[in-house]
Amino acid sequence: MKRIDRKLVRKSRIFNIYEDTILTDDNKEVIYDFLEHKGAAAVVPVLDDGRILMVHQFRNAIDRYTWEIPAGCRDSLDEEYIKAAARELEEETGYRSENLSFLIRLKTAVAFCSEQIDVFVAKNLIKSSQHLDEDEFIDVKAFSVEELKEMIYKGELQDAKTVASIMSYCNKYLHES
Amino acid sequence: MKRIDRKLVRKSRIFNIYEDTILTDDNKEVIYDFLEHKGAAAVVPVLDDGRILMVHQFRNAIDRYTWEIPAGCRDSLDEEYIKAAARELEEETGYRSENLSFLIRLKTAVAFCSEQIDVFVAKNLIKSSQHLDEDEFIDVKAFSVEELKEMIYKGELQDAKTVASIMSYCNKYLHES
Repeated sequence: MKRIDRKLVRKSRIFNIYEDTILTDDNKEVIYDFLEHKGAAAVVPVLDDGRILMVHQFRNAIDRYTWEIPAGCRDSLDEEYIKAAARELEEETGYRSENLSFLIRLKTAVAFCSEQIDVFVAKNLIKSSQHLDEDEFIDVKAFSVEELKEMIYKGELQDAKTVASIMSYCNKYLHES
Repeated sequence: MKRIDRKLVRKSRIFNIYEDTILTDDNKEVIYDFLEHKGAAAVVPVLDDGRILMVHQFRNAIDRYTWEIPAGCRDSLDEEYIKAAARELEEETGYRSENLSFLIRLKTAVAFCSEQIDVFVAKNLIKSSQHLDEDEFIDVKAFSVEELKEMIYKGELQDAKTVASIMSYCNKYLHES
């Protein structure tokens, strides 16, 4: 499979859309839409008592409120993911941390989008204050890992980066043999 | 937050793109792009020896080959997710199963896309044969859960639906207390 053409068809607030022409292994041309995304970072913020800080916000694309780990886009294609993670943690939860460690790297929608999210675990959280973007309205609450797992298996907590991150955190930090 | 307008701006192979006008809680109008997606299903196929079947394919959007659990779009907005899961399992891996159980429900990109993926665990796999779409070229291989966890924590296996599903499978089936 080989890409033989890429044409910009739309610029959007958080991505650009391209029309790609692909030559398949058996020499047919097919058209794929491609969303170019500048990448994002997310954080599993762990309080000293083991509970995880989650943010609650309205998501237009799925028409409902969600519980998610704090996350946000990089400011630019050059920004280090860990720097974006530290900023989003403080802006969205009002806590900061000097202790961020890499957990997992995600590609959120490999069929059509380049979005990458690097996820970090934050410990030794220090109370600071929330700084939201002008179109952000976010509540913050701490949940135990057991509560989060129950919400996931009941199908109530569905955000893919959050499910991947919470489950990866459990398997790495709570089930080590 | 309230949506006050939705305009179709582009129709694509696997989604439609709309421009949404949102009225925020403090009465400002902002524009969000919204991708309408018909939904997909995915399967964690577990062999009798505990290994998981994975599919290897080229992904244009991230310019590389990936290892993923088998998955694919629903044929229509009405198709039951479990039916799409059974079909994609057989088409992509050449195995079928009468024993699919619900694992998790994912929203892959809540910031801009409605895509939902329901994930099922398939056991008692029966050898059948692969039936690929004309632009699909897929290899299949079985991995142990330990191998998959290592690939995820090394940042080598990044597909979000796969990370969420494998980790959720481990926590539900392999760490039960």
